[in-house]
Amino acid sequence: MKKRLLFTYLALPLVVALLGILPTSAFAAGVSQELFTVNNTWMLVATFLVFIMHLGFATLESGLTRAKNTTNILFKNTAIVAIGLLTYALCGFNLMYPGDFNGWIGFAGIGLSLPAGDAGLIGYADGNYTYYTDFIFQAMFAATAATIVSGAVAERVKLSSFLVFSTIFVAIVYPIVGSWKWGGGWLDKMGFYDFAGSTLVHGVGGWGALACVLVLGPRIGKFVNGQVRPILGHSMPLATIGVFLLWLGWFGFNGGSVLSADPGAVSLVFVTTSLAAAAGVISSMVTSWMVQKKPDLSMILNGSLAGLVGITAGSDTVTVTSSIIIGLVAGVIVVFSVMFFDKIKIDDPVGALSVHLVCGIWGTLAVGIFSTNPEHKLWIQFVGVIAYGVTCFVAAFGIFLALKVTMGVRVTEQEEMEGLDMHEHGVAAYNGFQITNQ
Amino acid sequence: MKKRLLFTYLALPLVVALLGILPTSAFAAGVSQELFTVNNTWMLVATFLVFIMHLGFATLESGLTRAKNTTNILFKNTAIVAIGLLTYALCGFNLMYPGDFNGWIGFAGIGLSLPAGDAGLIGYADGNYTYYTDFIFQAMFAATAATIVSGAVAERVKLSSFLVFSTIFVAIVYPIVGSWKWGGGWLDKMGFYDFAGSTLVHGVGGWGALACVLVLGPRIGKFVNGQVRPILGHSMPLATIGVFLLWLGWFGFNGGSVLSADPGAVSLVFVTTSLAAAAGVISSMVTSWMVQKKPDLSMILNGSLAGLVGITAGSDTVTVTSSIIIGLVAGVIVVFSVMFFDKIKIDDPVGALSVHLVCGIWGTLAVGIFSTNPEHKLWIQFVGVIAYGVTCFVAAFGIFLALKVTMGVRVTEQEEMEGLDMHEHGVAAYNGFQITNQ
Amino acid sequence: MKKRLLFTYLALPLVVALLGILPTSAFAAGVSQELFTVNNTWMLVATFLVFIMHLGFATLESGLTRAKNTTNILFKNTAIVAIGLLTYALCGFNLMYPGDFNGWIGFAGIGLSLPAGDAGLIGYADGNYTYYTDFIFQAMFAATAATIVSGAVAERVKLSSFLVFSTIFVAIVYPIVGSWKWGGGWLDKMGFYDFAGSTLVHGVGGWGALACVLVLGPRIGKFVNGQVRPILGHSMPLATIGVFLLWLGWFGFNGGSVLSADPGAVSLVFVTTSLAAAAGVISSMVTSWMVQKKPDLSMILNGSLAGLVGITAGSDTVTVTSSIIIGLVAGVIVVFSVMFFDKIKIDDPVGALSVHLVCGIWGTLAVGIFSTNPEHKLWIQFVGVIAYGVTCFVAAFGIFLALKVTMGVRVTEQEEMEGLDMHEHGVAAYNGFQITNQ
Repeated sequence: MKKRLLFTYLALPLVVALLGILPTSAFAAGVSQELFTVNNTWMLVATFLVFIMHLGFATLESGLTRAKNTTNILFKNTAIVAIGLLTYALCGFNLMYPGDFNGWIGFAGIGLSLPAGDAGLIGYADGNYTYYTDFIFQAMFAATAATIVSGAVAERVKLSSFLVFSTIFVAIVYPIVGSWKWGGGWLDKMGFYDFAGSTLVHGVGGWGALACVLVLGPRIGKFVNGQVRPILGHSMPLATIGVFLLWLGWFGFNGGSVLSADPGAVSLVFVTTSLAAAAGVISSMVTSWMVQKKPDLSMILNGSLAGLVGITAGSDTVTVTSSIIIGLVAGVIVVFSVMFFDKIKIDDPVGALSVHLVCGIWGTLAVGIFSTNPEHKLWIQFVGVIAYGVTCFVAAFGIFLALKVTMGVRVTEQEEMEGLDMHEHGVAAYNGFQITNQ
Repeated sequence: MKKRLLFTYLALPLVVALLGILPTSAFAAGVSQELFTVNNTWMLVATFLVFIMHLGFATLESGLTRAKNTTNILFKNTAIVAIGLLTYALCGFNLMYPGDFNGWIGFAGIGLSLPAGDAGLIGYADGNYTYYTDFIFQAMFAATAATIVSGAVAERVKLSSFLVFSTIFVAIVYPIVGSWKWGGGWLDKMGFYDFAGSTLVHGVGGWGALACVLVLGPRIGKFVNGQVRPILGHSMPLATIGVFLLWLGWFGFNGGSVLSADPGAVSLVFVTTSLAAAAGVISSMVTSWMVQKKPDLSMILNGSLAGLVGITAGSDTVTVTSSIIIGLVAGVIVVFSVMFFDKIKIDDPVGALSVHLVCGIWGTLAVGIFSTNPEHKLWIQFVGVIAYGVTCFVAAFGIFLALKVTMGVRVTEQEEMEGLDMHEHGVAAYNGFQITNQ
Repeated sequence: MKKRLLFTYLALPLVVALLGILPTSAFAAGVSQELFTVNNTWMLVATFLVFIMHLGFATLESGLTRAKNTTNILFKNTAIVAIGLLTYALCGFNLMYPGDFNGWIGFAGIGLSLPAGDAGLIGYADGNYTYYTDFIFQAMFAATAATIVSGAVAERVKLSSFLVFSTIFVAIVYPIVGSWKWGGGWLDKMGFYDFAGSTLVHGVGGWGALACVLVLGPRIGKFVNGQVRPILGHSMPLATIGVFLLWLGWFGFNGGSVLSADPGAVSLVFVTTSLAAAAGVISSMVTSWMVQKKPDLSMILNGSLAGLVGITAGSDTVTVTSSIIIGLVAGVIVVFSVMFFDKIKIDDPVGALSVHLVCGIWGTLAVGIFSTNPEHKLWIQFVGVIAYGVTCFVAAFGIFLALKVTMGVRVTEQEEMEGLDMHEHGVAAYNGFQITNQ
């Protein structure tokens, strides 16, 4: 009798097994269909969160620049998403994840290469998500590197040249250097660690931005007779919307980099990410209030981003307390960095260099200082920073210089004075409003 | 000994079965509680994504129209969400999903009809989500059809008449024609395919918009002495925010239409949806740059939406390559379509006809061309397009004409010139800004 | 033979069990790793939804006030998020959830207290999510209470004093009174019910706002010679963006308060939340149209929020029909409440008192009227409302009065007239636009 009851209950998991698990033969060993599905779902949620960062960049950049260049910035940021997604499908994904390769450069071929049979759709390799999920999550990352450049060169770059530059940068430079770590290349083998891209995304974009800004020169009127003249952004609401959307997206940027819905890891990342951003707000507020005597909104907005960029490399591998320290330091760094670039007459309209490049370096080195994993070494982090810095700076400088010589990279003085919106696009961003030509 | 060990391990799934699976007796056969929960969770995520599309429509429409009509547009779009949700609860859901019916029209009764016992809450029919999830996901869709009309009739329609029209349209027309396919009606039985609503949502809204625009006539000043005068939108940042939010929402619109969190299907839909949108941006950019000699922001914004509408009908059933082709074609179509409607003097302030109607038709036919499922036939897709077109156009035309005769559908000339905000609502959208009355 | 086949199939769940379930020994009894993971994932989705409410508050508040104070409002709302998250980590979480305590006040110590071993990361207590998820979800709630105060005191409060006030309020007052119900304190033991915080969040913030507004007094020019002078908000698009983002966030606010991804409960909450908001829009539209003779956009925006606040306390425990009634009543209440506060000369620039305090009371009492759970009693709900009201009002009044005496809480008349942006921050929110100093 008892035995019979036992068999009755046994039937339950059996039925589940027969109906629910049989079709999962293609799932990786040890991952049930259920767990695979929730992991995959979380990765897709992270994907749409990273997508919305592009709106965050578009609104932040346009908010921090002048009304006469707003259409141009919105156009660039919309086009870059499209370029990023398509080139990543065409070649980026297979350059970044080439499989077995020499550790420096490899290419798995043009287009997407869905594994044979149902493996790509059902149980991709030994992962926690499908091939398509893998591609689209990574593709959303790709365009962000080019977008970072966009902010730094705003208000004076020629649209066509910028589109060509960012196509090459996102299609070739970003994925190749990305393969060094995330594709399993030489830096990965050396032990370099960059969880979600303080260097691989923000640093890469930041070094590219630095190169382009040096080739391009400052905006007319920014440095006059050795004096720095502030050029105010036209809409702080837009800038604030941008920062909140970026912060929101970062939950997917860092949270998705766990590459599964693992409860412990993802929730830790949510906490370290949030607290680093919050700490960046507070320390940039205090610093700017003390140094500039006024609490500066654009500084605390950049302070939150500084904290976010800072925690990106180690958000899964530092303690909560460390995350707060990393954010606090980033928030101080960003204020002084903005002042420093002004001082050395490098014109970066939105503070992209300070946020993405400088705090990206800080975040990458911070892994070497704060990681709870003893295998993460400061000197290896330093090697990584240098390797990415040299490569990306040289590549971007070369590409942009070649464009300068051939197509030209800068609008004419008249175009810059009257605004890129009317000259490049023929339509103002705001119609009906009385707007002074700052 | 070995036997004992075996039984020890056997105990594990047994415990899980006893504790975790026993309460799931109401779940559909073959779906574990875990899988049911993740499916249901994904459907609710998709629900809030579709919800945020309403903010996307509100900001896109107001950005592409004049500042003096902004309050009016925001009001309409907020009210429509409320009307859509409530009428769908009252009668729409039971008209659209009447159960067994004659294939043309059926009605399961007033209000929601939660299945008896816990079935509705725990394991709805043989589905992957609860009755309430089913309702709220579908309800979020319902209002979008009416919102599409809103954009086309903007800047001249009388608020009260528009509210009455959209109430009837969303409560009765949309769900009845919807039942023909998604409710299992005659077009479904014939083999017509529309995965997420290129025709059932965008086409329905688009045909309604065409009818209303014809009844209403163009805005004053749009066509003067046979010439087309462009009426510029007042805020490109608002329009861009709108497009990105719509794109974001589309991940739920298409991704949720899988009706489960099935990893292969949902991730494929994410990829086809993203790449079609990206392709629409690129092809509309190239087309508008060549035809209009300037890269037009509003064109690439509409280009991304064109790609999204185009891929909606077949995003689960075409290859990645096909999705890019569908998006590319949609991006070209939308540019020429906008020019065409101008030419034949049909005034559509936001390009709703070109995006939703024309690309909705394209997307529906594209299933017949590109689908990997040989059961999808071009001629049946064509039949579906015609059936929806005739019905929705005639119904909307009739309703709106009846309103014209009774309540009037258009504001007075003075109201239109001075703006609907002051006349209909007594409050401007922007206060403190110097705004010229375009 | 048959037996062998049986064993083959048996092997499947066994393998899953061995590989997938063994590491879950730390999971709560009866919750599989899969279910735990989906529950935890949903809670993190809810967390980022509540996060985005802060952008909703920031844009709603700045949209409904004047352009000259916009930077100030954006600054406050960005800083509050940071302050809320950090103080909640420092002491708030352990004040609100002190574990075993006297029911009135308890403190589990400074900082986060991750359970020993892997329990916090893998299977937190007997819950459905990790310790970190618990913390970050609750932390996102904490700051909202202070943000509600921000709206009511806008356009005249001194930044430094407000930051000090909100730090104390969110770090100490909110968590202590929160512990009375959600921490298992005396009101919880008495049977008081507040599912997601009609009183615990919105009421607490609302009572705080009332106290501060009384200490602060009305804005210059609001009440002149006994007449109420409307002070118009500067941007209805910003206000509308705010309301839609708040509504979006409410899916996480209420949906996450289920504290698991339970399909029946979460989907019911989605439906009641949506329909109450929709009903609030409709009833406030009708009421304002009848009373003010014009359909007022700011009224229907507040109407949707009224419905949302109203349904918050009982969204899991009332029927769908009841949720519509609760929303309808809330939408009527909010219109008359706004008029009432004007009449008694209490100046609340954004209607925060009417939305959060008055409708928070309504929602809390509505549980006593409409709950399907007979243990919910109206008189106990009333006791809860009074207890929170007296405590929060007295506490906020005391803190803010102390600040008035020491630091001062109000900017000078000149600063108020010229705008807080230039005086407090030295930077206008809009540059390049011609803006009149309303």
